[in-house]
Amino acid sequence: MTYIAMLGYGTVGSGVAELILKNRNKFKKNIKDELILSKVLVRNLEKHNESNNPSIFTKDVKDIFKENVDIVVEAMGGIDPAYEYVKKALELKKHVVTANKDLIAEHGEELLNIANKNGVILKFEASVGGGIPILKSINECLVGNKIKSIKAILNGTTNFILSKMSKENMSYNDALKLAQDMGFAESNPESDVMGYDAARKLSILSTIAFKKKINWKNIKINGITNIDPMDFQYAQSVGFEIKLLAIAELQKNSIYASVSPVMVRKNSTLGKIENEYNAILVDGDAVGDVVFIGKGAGKFPTASAVFSDIMDIVQSKKENRILFDTKEASINTIWRKENKWLLRINTKDRIAAMSGLVELFPYCNIVAKSKYGLENEVAAFVKSENEAILDKNIRMLRERIDCNNVKKIMILEDE
Amino acid sequence: MTYIAMLGYGTVGSGVAELILKNRNKFKKNIKDELILSKVLVRNLEKHNESNNPSIFTKDVKDIFKENVDIVVEAMGGIDPAYEYVKKALELKKHVVTANKDLIAEHGEELLNIANKNGVILKFEASVGGGIPILKSINECLVGNKIKSIKAILNGTTNFILSKMSKENMSYNDALKLAQDMGFAESNPESDVMGYDAARKLSILSTIAFKKKINWKNIKINGITNIDPMDFQYAQSVGFEIKLLAIAELQKNSIYASVSPVMVRKNSTLGKIENEYNAILVDGDAVGDVVFIGKGAGKFPTASAVFSDIMDIVQSKKENRILFDTKEASINTIWRKENKWLLRINTKDRIAAMSGLVELFPYCNIVAKSKYGLENEVAAFVKSENEAILDKNIRMLRERIDCNNVKKIMILEDE
Repeated sequence: MTYIAMLGYGTVGSGVAELILKNRNKFKKNIKDELILSKVLVRNLEKHNESNNPSIFTKDVKDIFKENVDIVVEAMGGIDPAYEYVKKALELKKHVVTANKDLIAEHGEELLNIANKNGVILKFEASVGGGIPILKSINECLVGNKIKSIKAILNGTTNFILSKMSKENMSYNDALKLAQDMGFAESNPESDVMGYDAARKLSILSTIAFKKKINWKNIKINGITNIDPMDFQYAQSVGFEIKLLAIAELQKNSIYASVSPVMVRKNSTLGKIENEYNAILVDGDAVGDVVFIGKGAGKFPTASAVFSDIMDIVQSKKENRILFDTKEASINTIWRKENKWLLRINTKDRIAAMSGLVELFPYCNIVAKSKYGLENEVAAFVKSENEAILDKNIRMLRERIDCNNVKKIMILEDE
Repeated sequence: MTYIAMLGYGTVGSGVAELILKNRNKFKKNIKDELILSKVLVRNLEKHNESNNPSIFTKDVKDIFKENVDIVVEAMGGIDPAYEYVKKALELKKHVVTANKDLIAEHGEELLNIANKNGVILKFEASVGGGIPILKSINECLVGNKIKSIKAILNGTTNFILSKMSKENMSYNDALKLAQDMGFAESNPESDVMGYDAARKLSILSTIAFKKKINWKNIKINGITNIDPMDFQYAQSVGFEIKLLAIAELQKNSIYASVSPVMVRKNSTLGKIENEYNAILVDGDAVGDVVFIGKGAGKFPTASAVFSDIMDIVQSKKENRILFDTKEASINTIWRKENKWLLRINTKDRIAAMSGLVELFPYCNIVAKSKYGLENEVAAFVKSENEAILDKNIRMLRERIDCNNVKKIMILEDE
């Protein structure tokens, strides 16, 4: 018998409970063990009076830490009090499974060390990519590879908003409102639309992939709040989509790490990921490109990943612990390879801007004014040896001409 | 120390040897173990005189079975003598890793039982999908799911040929010849182009996914030898591609299992898989659709999967053994759900064929003759409640009119 206690009974928690119940007998035979959900911490006991098994619900967290509990599933979300509870569970030598990316991105290293010291396991497959089996794939299946890069769509809310803006010409505000009305976005959408959520997931993913610590606060983060319908028009004029991409790539002994709106070919694997789907493209030196696509959030996709973590623990694979490396990676937020970008220069002096562009960029494809025709704007696709040179050239351009703003969007041609 | 002996040193074998060497030190620290490639069985010793370490090569298979060998990697391919060698290794209580789909599809059940009886592990991740971590993902990561369907492109050779026929209007024979010249197809391509290779892989994949034995010989198998340029014209006229799809799907308590050319939307995930890439779309009841894409063959992709199997064994995860179920699945080769098909009716009496079609099929979209204009052909997209009814209607049509042949191709609209 394996006794499981759960913190929280919201969307994820109730999904996990359902999967445990559903699979309880299925595994009796195979693993000669039985999964029992013995306690669930909730805020409001009355809400669960009508449930099939009201006695498992408790308001007292002490019940979760009782001696006979083997595994604690943390399904509360947020840092406080999840952090304290998980820490305590580990110190009491209970295995812990969580889907909480905020918690792992913020305190993963410390919590994994506590787990290790206490001879128990902390697992968090659902924290990145929801139901997509990505952490285990990188950690176990691609173990013979040196990971060269990760390019991923890790946030369903922003992907939904960008899809609506692109396909239905919605404004950012209208698309956000629709996402909120449909329950895809929270009333306070900051963590999603500012890119923080994707950055936390990228930090977990890349810390495991590159075996170096990638603090999410060191990642370059640009959200989607700045993207407007014109950006989509420009992108579409060359057959591209705009996606909020999380990128981590080994570049000259350091790791480029960013979350930002990027153009990808409309017909590419990443360009075709719509709405709430996530996609993760991993490039390993032996295996080449491997792509994982699936639902990045939601009750059962998340519960599916949590449940596989539970089964891993039940099968006592304690040997294959994921450990976060404590060695800080050298992170760079400047793209160090030749690439193309879209520049949108807000200026009254279009002629000067155009001649400046042509002088500064050997490859410069200026979008005809007549095409979209913003009065005070020059748009151009430019190529640059790397992002530092690009930024330097933009600075030089701004010195030469009278301009209010220069907006740049990176373009990925090969994904 | 873990001592590894290898059978064969061709493309896969030499790739595995290189990965072992490369990762030898990387894992010394992590797993406190060291991987030593101690013996390699080859046919011709002289060929390896110049290698860095000629003493590891042997012509005597007895060296492979020596007492100090922990893991045997089978990299010979084919059934004979791989079957005898693998059986013997397992009986001598050596773990075995193989990439050999023919062997596993043919003798997997017996070999897994021998492994089990002897307390050792038999692993074969590379046998399906090359470097794509699909068996472990299904077996461990999707463990809480009931798998509803698998739709996959599992053979790179045929995918290459179909890509060339579609994109460059090549004939089947020219595309096959190009594939052979480029080393993608063998001089005897039968196993690939007839669909046998994909069927063997589907049998392994679906036996694990559905936990019922799917004998590859019970799978409906149609190769690509019958596909001609006109099929692509018809497909393209409605925005579709033709792919050799392996499908296994729970339909009314039995499992539909087939390998055949199928139309998928040009812009769908499967429609966009080109050349040597493989893709596997798994639908689980909790997780929803999950897609895995990567290189299905080749030296290092295959070696990457073999190496992860080796590491799994080194880490002694003996608890999570894959077992083939001995209970025979009820397999059906008739598509039991409503679907669309392309019918190409070879007849001199086009008028009768058309009126017959319209009578027999409530949904029937006849392709205008002027469009591609084969003199003796009527082509139509038809919808049918299921494939049995479709076949019955085709029989009725053939009774009514004078026709030489009716060719049907299934269409998947939602992948």
